[in-house]
Amino acid sequence: VTAALEAAGMPIAARVYVEDDEAALEQALAPEAVMTVVVAGPGGSPGDVVRRAIARATATRLVLNERMLAALEKHHRRRDRPLPRRAERLALLPHGVTLWTTDGGEPGWVVESAGAAFVVLPRGQIDRALADHLTAYARERLGGRPAVIVRTLKTAGVSLEEVEERLVDRRGWAGAPAAMKDSPVSVATVPAPGEVWVRLSVRAGAPGAAAAALASVEASVLDALGADCYGRDGETLEGVVGRLLVERGLTLAVAESCTGGLLGHRLTNNPGSSAYFERGIVVYSNRAKQELLGVPASVLERHGAVSAPCAEAMARGICERSASACGVAITGIAGPEGGSAAKPVGTVFVGLAISGDVVSRRFRFDGDRAAVKWQSAQMALDMLRRGLARSGR
Amino acid sequence: VTAALEAAGMPIAARVYVEDDEAALEQALAPEAVMTVVVAGPGGSPGDVVRRAIARATATRLVLNERMLAALEKHHRRRDRPLPRRAERLALLPHGVTLWTTDGGEPGWVVESAGAAFVVLPRGQIDRALADHLTAYARERLGGRPAVIVRTLKTAGVSLEEVEERLVDRRGWAGAPAAMKDSPVSVATVPAPGEVWVRLSVRAGAPGAAAAALASVEASVLDALGADCYGRDGETLEGVVGRLLVERGLTLAVAESCTGGLLGHRLTNNPGSSAYFERGIVVYSNRAKQELLGVPASVLERHGAVSAPCAEAMARGICERSASACGVAITGIAGPEGGSAAKPVGTVFVGLAISGDVVSRRFRFDGDRAAVKWQSAQMALDMLRRGLARSGR
Repeated sequence: VTAALEAAGMPIAARVYVEDDEAALEQALAPEAVMTVVVAGPGGSPGDVVRRAIARATATRLVLNERMLAALEKHHRRRDRPLPRRAERLALLPHGVTLWTTDGGEPGWVVESAGAAFVVLPRGQIDRALADHLTAYARERLGGRPAVIVRTLKTAGVSLEEVEERLVDRRGWAGAPAAMKDSPVSVATVPAPGEVWVRLSVRAGAPGAAAAALASVEASVLDALGADCYGRDGETLEGVVGRLLVERGLTLAVAESCTGGLLGHRLTNNPGSSAYFERGIVVYSNRAKQELLGVPASVLERHGAVSAPCAEAMARGICERSASACGVAITGIAGPEGGSAAKPVGTVFVGLAISGDVVSRRFRFDGDRAAVKWQSAQMALDMLRRGLARSGR
Repeated sequence: VTAALEAAGMPIAARVYVEDDEAALEQALAPEAVMTVVVAGPGGSPGDVVRRAIARATATRLVLNERMLAALEKHHRRRDRPLPRRAERLALLPHGVTLWTTDGGEPGWVVESAGAAFVVLPRGQIDRALADHLTAYARERLGGRPAVIVRTLKTAGVSLEEVEERLVDRRGWAGAPAAMKDSPVSVATVPAPGEVWVRLSVRAGAPGAAAAALASVEASVLDALGADCYGRDGETLEGVVGRLLVERGLTLAVAESCTGGLLGHRLTNNPGSSAYFERGIVVYSNRAKQELLGVPASVLERHGAVSAPCAEAMARGICERSASACGVAITGIAGPEGGSAAKPVGTVFVGLAISGDVVSRRFRFDGDRAAVKWQSAQMALDMLRRGLARSGR
């Protein structure tokens, strides 16, 4: 939701979490704001609370909304479920709402009153279509003039501290409060899971001047980040990798051990990934590594499954067996068990094969099992990104 | 963070999101609360802002904390990275803090002053160890007497509306405001991704009475939910499946198409999953389905890859090739492309093989690609859970 609003240039004054309590919700509704977005449970008690609180805030009555009822009917029919008896109550909405229907999910809705706007989105179901409705509506509320311009530059494979030191080196960035010296553009580093973002924002008073100031700072930051910056705004690391594979006409197969399928999952989050993603193999046992990837028994005996030679053999094996141009392999110790003094928990090897060239890297990740898995997949994607970028030169 | 606090019986008065702004943060700090938890960036500008705001709120000076400096040094040494020049600034903490160190991650810290307590946790790195510190500290602040007891009952494979209707049927639950009639226990339905939770909570005035009231409502709700309830509180669907597999001494292999590895990823989020998870195969192409799973060409020709016969052949194939007792297969159309009138986007077949018995189910999921993938993995886990529960009787 926040990302959709920022994309529309809508600055966010406050984010408030409200327990399931009508009075608290009514207090949190902000009639003085350009718009208030409420993310609520679609039915049952939270929904009732939201509907009543907004009806009061806008001084409207709750009436049966036929379009909402039809959308709920369609939603249930699609899932071969009977319409619940309480559906008519769920379709009681403030008079004068606009429904945002999506292809199958629960609709969102918006009601305007005395200059205020209240948007209600169903919790847990904010899909792309609803986010698009929200972005478009926020743009409309702003009359086509964004109040703030935000640019996010995303890096992988480099630590938060290193990003910050480079920004300091480059521009004498004071660090706190986050602002480039002598610039209306504010700069902040944002740690995201497994990566670091640099967030530039500028109040859009005079639109042309703000955009120019942003572009100037962006160029300087991009220069400082170099090849560590993989993309910006809505781009994802897996999306960038997918684009590079398509551009180069290469296919990819992956062999995962400690990540258990996370790398394949992330790669296939891209729509259209079937164009380049050939297959994935999750090999937890040594037997599976030998059978499915042809890792030599001698490698497993001499170096163990968590080793550079094993990661390289896995990458080579998955390429050969799937006839793919690129192969990525991950083997490591996600924990909490299985660590040793020589190979503590968090030790992970990533193997990468591109058109016959095989390399590997050793990592040591912090955190619990989930954190080690995520960072492993992240660094595997980043090694592939850098390898593909080099191979295309 | 919220889950850790609830587990400790600490009711949450407010959750506030603060932009990177010192004045706004100072206003959000709540000296009247038993404790305030701030989740902040570990270094750089947000961290500085937090440190200064809390020092002012507690009327303490910022001093160089040697233990923090040592922890930062250790953190960087583990990752083979030099300590940044600004590390000394990052180690400037309010006088009198208690550090919560974890095995490798950035530490959290807490400072107490005039009855108030301020906890600062590093953003994006709240691992299990920090959550444990937080739970233990919250318990200590409450003097061993939880102020609220929360129980979450988790269901899978049943819709929000159905759960609510069953609660209404059972106890004349009014629905809004969420409360069982004639009971101090409040009941709310919580839609979570792909599942529905029922959250029971009671203010713990007289501890014995509150626990008894909760137990009585819990028994009634459990009875209404029946086999649709898979677990409670911190339990996860993949965790319950793992426990059932261990109890029955069975191994599992999975074959995924549209989920791309998500099912394997979720199964291997369990520590100790290597005891039962044999392997996973991600087959995006028809060729891979034939080569790696032995799906007959005739099945693909006659029924297509997205069909019950293909899902069943995949489940059978992964069992046989991996010599596993259980096999789960997912094949479907995650979208946004690839749908047809007969098999629209969101159509997914799940095949399940347990000790030679093979079944399949057809689903139609709503939402975008990510939502379809998540729900597919969810229903595959739930089918496996129900199948294992039956097989153990």
